[in-house]
Amino acid sequence: MTESSYPISRFTPPELSSLPEDIRAQIETVQEKSGFVPNVFLVLARRPDEFRAFMAYHDALMEREGNLTKAEREMIVVATSSANQCQYCVIAHGAILRIRAKNPLIADQIATNYRKADITERQRAMLDFAMKVAQQAHQVGEEDFATLVSHGFDQEDIWDIAAIAGFFGMSNRIANVTNLRANDQFFTLGRD
Amino acid sequence: MTESSYPISRFTPPELSSLPEDIRAQIETVQEKSGFVPNVFLVLARRPDEFRAFMAYHDALMEREGNLTKAEREMIVVATSSANQCQYCVIAHGAILRIRAKNPLIADQIATNYRKADITERQRAMLDFAMKVAQQAHQVGEEDFATLVSHGFDQEDIWDIAAIAGFFGMSNRIANVTNLRANDQFFTLGRD
Amino acid sequence: MTESSYPISRFTPPELSSLPEDIRAQIETVQEKSGFVPNVFLVLARRPDEFRAFMAYHDALMEREGNLTKAEREMIVVATSSANQCQYCVIAHGAILRIRAKNPLIADQIATNYRKADITERQRAMLDFAMKVAQQAHQVGEEDFATLVSHGFDQEDIWDIAAIAGFFGMSNRIANVTNLRANDQFFTLGRD
Amino acid sequence: MTESSYPISRFTPPELSSLPEDIRAQIETVQEKSGFVPNVFLVLARRPDEFRAFMAYHDALMEREGNLTKAEREMIVVATSSANQCQYCVIAHGAILRIRAKNPLIADQIATNYRKADITERQRAMLDFAMKVAQQAHQVGEEDFATLVSHGFDQEDIWDIAAIAGFFGMSNRIANVTNLRANDQFFTLGRD
Amino acid sequence: MTESSYPISRFTPPELSSLPEDIRAQIETVQEKSGFVPNVFLVLARRPDEFRAFMAYHDALMEREGNLTKAEREMIVVATSSANQCQYCVIAHGAILRIRAKNPLIADQIATNYRKADITERQRAMLDFAMKVAQQAHQVGEEDFATLVSHGFDQEDIWDIAAIAGFFGMSNRIANVTNLRANDQFFTLGRD
Amino acid sequence: MTESSYPISRFTPPELSSLPEDIRAQIETVQEKSGFVPNVFLVLARRPDEFRAFMAYHDALMEREGNLTKAEREMIVVATSSANQCQYCVIAHGAILRIRAKNPLIADQIATNYRKADITERQRAMLDFAMKVAQQAHQVGEEDFATLVSHGFDQEDIWDIAAIAGFFGMSNRIANVTNLRANDQFFTLGRD
Repeated sequence: MTESSYPISRFTPPELSSLPEDIRAQIETVQEKSGFVPNVFLVLARRPDEFRAFMAYHDALMEREGNLTKAEREMIVVATSSANQCQYCVIAHGAILRIRAKNPLIADQIATNYRKADITERQRAMLDFAMKVAQQAHQVGEEDFATLVSHGFDQEDIWDIAAIAGFFGMSNRIANVTNLRANDQFFTLGRD
Repeated sequence: MTESSYPISRFTPPELSSLPEDIRAQIETVQEKSGFVPNVFLVLARRPDEFRAFMAYHDALMEREGNLTKAEREMIVVATSSANQCQYCVIAHGAILRIRAKNPLIADQIATNYRKADITERQRAMLDFAMKVAQQAHQVGEEDFATLVSHGFDQEDIWDIAAIAGFFGMSNRIANVTNLRANDQFFTLGRD
Repeated sequence: MTESSYPISRFTPPELSSLPEDIRAQIETVQEKSGFVPNVFLVLARRPDEFRAFMAYHDALMEREGNLTKAEREMIVVATSSANQCQYCVIAHGAILRIRAKNPLIADQIATNYRKADITERQRAMLDFAMKVAQQAHQVGEEDFATLVSHGFDQEDIWDIAAIAGFFGMSNRIANVTNLRANDQFFTLGRD
Repeated sequence: MTESSYPISRFTPPELSSLPEDIRAQIETVQEKSGFVPNVFLVLARRPDEFRAFMAYHDALMEREGNLTKAEREMIVVATSSANQCQYCVIAHGAILRIRAKNPLIADQIATNYRKADITERQRAMLDFAMKVAQQAHQVGEEDFATLVSHGFDQEDIWDIAAIAGFFGMSNRIANVTNLRANDQFFTLGRD
Repeated sequence: MTESSYPISRFTPPELSSLPEDIRAQIETVQEKSGFVPNVFLVLARRPDEFRAFMAYHDALMEREGNLTKAEREMIVVATSSANQCQYCVIAHGAILRIRAKNPLIADQIATNYRKADITERQRAMLDFAMKVAQQAHQVGEEDFATLVSHGFDQEDIWDIAAIAGFFGMSNRIANVTNLRANDQFFTLGRD
Repeated sequence: MTESSYPISRFTPPELSSLPEDIRAQIETVQEKSGFVPNVFLVLARRPDEFRAFMAYHDALMEREGNLTKAEREMIVVATSSANQCQYCVIAHGAILRIRAKNPLIADQIATNYRKADITERQRAMLDFAMKVAQQAHQVGEEDFATLVSHGFDQEDIWDIAAIAGFFGMSNRIANVTNLRANDQFFTLGRD
């Protein structure tokens, strides 16, 4: 499968050979594992310090041990990124969600209207809260915590939901400004 | 491929055998042509008069001769239905758009953020206007017509764009209230 | 009473003599009954197939037997059309509402703020739901159905409310884009 | 003509006989002049100091000499009060506008969508600005002043527009909270 | 302390010597009491009738006897003026609030997010209602009154809250349009 | 100066003695430099990996060499954090902005309405863009880049503005959910 001929961003990605050793290694690792390099790696690599902080933050939130499954963390990404109209994040993390959830339908359902998706009531409460964090965090209050607790979430889970919604809110904004293009591969991954 | 076990709507669809002859025939035709019956047919069939008017209106707008291609008409559907968070319409018409445009990427791009999609400037102007009709039709004025004319659209094209955005605005609302589920088949059609 | 000298739409209406027989007949019937031809008939007649589908859909929803009275159906039209800032629909259906409800005050009350109108609690619930369909249909859920059922509405009534709000949402958008002018007669009908 | 049996407000109006002399006199004057007492007088009279300040402010803005005609001042009231969904102000000042403009159509046109009303381009610019003051005053800037000047408005006119939109923004909020009912008479005044 | 060299408004203030006696006296009184003349006095003085009505209305609401303390009245001003992005009112009344509440933190807390401020639950309910009046007065209904009553507010208190939110909504709009500058002194008053 | 007796967050901060060495050292450094520990350090320290990524990201953006001054970077933080109603960030970074800009007025002006603040046209363009990133990043397009370039910003500056607005959008959301309290000291720093 060859890549589209469209530029991957309004910002030209750096030459791989010009990158610091640790970043080049990280990019080579993801390429070996996935078969391609997600464009976000290439564009963020223009700024090595931000690249390192971004990836460290991402992994701290998305690969953390905790009550939220990895698929649930991706649900949060897809729902909030869709509200923020971030093409890269919805399409790339939609693929990851399909794979993590072993469900070819879930990503498109959540991206268009999570309220109608094939999810549990607990997951619905999780996404309701994530969307409130993404859109009206200033109104979050005790009643939101009480609702989440009634669905079995504890304080650390709530921090996770909020931090993931917040982190991808940042990522969505950067992707929209840099016009970051989703790799062709993401559109079809996990659809079988 | 077997259907999901989820109900297709909050409203129970009628028995096919109970339907008026013309509606049953129309449903059998679409099944032969597509290999399955899109759920919108089954749910709308509860109301034969509305079914007939809906389908007649749909075809009058989507199969009309004119300067807009069939793929462009589907682009309008996908962009505005996504703004209205209509799961059925985004997923079903996303499939139709992929097929009509012979482009496996275009539907997901337009659904998440049409401003970043692989479309022409003329199509971008068309979708900007369709979104204004969907979201702020009360503010449409001469300057919108002038912009569209500068992109080569004539008065009949503008009517088409507005009527398609309006018609699917209705359809989106009915689908959201009836909780209409997109058939599993739509998720993968046209992705090769 | 002579008509205003303003054009009735940004789109020139067709000559009556050029229209298909069935459409001309329908227009003559409404003229006999009302004493004038509502401008929506003249402008939509530019597109015979859409005219027929529009009128069939309109009648299927507005003249249907059911628990909603004809006046209540018009209340839905006036409230949602006002939210969509559709001059034609608020003024024309405001007149029809005054006549159907035999109440000269109700249309202006509902158009400006239905929450303060002289309506029953059941009608208030009906309009709350119609407005949610018009403005946030993607958020409609089980709790909305439960509220409506508690006011005595059944599933068919809910379909009616949603479909009327949806249909006039389409109509409002087309009227706003075509700049459809309300006939002078509508402003005073039913005010005695 | 007898009054409706509905209460005129959530707040009971005071006995006329209990009012300070100057307020009672003012109410009697308006009754002689109009044939009825607009309900806003009765409800505001509960608070004599606020009544006096309100009426003085109102008259300073609405009866001021200047380039804006009295009808144009009422146009501002109707357009912004409709955006604020104030039933009393739209209906009462709609009547006054019909009378001042000697135009039975103008009030309903402006209330539903001033962009489609039978007004001049200068009046359209005036209402565009009034609506910006009502809804996004924090964004008003030099470019708004330049637009208004290009339509022939001077600094004093701009102050007038802004102050009228601001004053009725206050009035709209008080009327909505007190549930102030428009007198039956206002619905028909000036419609001939 | 010398004043900034920036103009105090887009509208030139009048010469003090040119002002009517009563207004000049009022300005001299405030100067003696505060040590400076708040810019709102100078700009409003361009229009003596409006100046008098404004000040009378202001004092009727802010110095009224009642269950709301003077500090609480200022809280309403600061919270709603911040929502309206009125620089003059947030900064000037923030200073007054700090003084009245004898609390150097409260004004900045309320201006940025009153939900997180060091206030009582009763004050939180008061501000929730004031914000609803400022932003969605058309939706105020019985349930809002019930909530306020449950926090110990009576009908007159509710009128006070609504009228203060309404009056400063007007003031905010005028200040934003006239580009009224907050005096340097207000930034530091009451911070010790 | 003693701290308020209010909790600094809904999430209890960890004991300093329990923290990893590097984080404790970082906290001690800031305490020595500032005379107090900003609460954000204490609350984020509950999650060492997130703490490290957050601080690294923060410093990469806020202490980067480039055309934006440090004061301008803080302006972006204050303007966007105010739009997000983040009490901690507006108050803490307002203090830093006053110090960096050596201007005791600028932070409150920008927090309430940056359009009326004492800033240059170039800074106004910078904040207009930062606010668009914070609120409508999905609509950012070529015309925004062109406007910024016309004010002398280059591509790296634009990345800086977007990334700062994005990063603090995340920070604002976390602070609002954790109910992070601004230290008393921030309210008065830099006001002389």
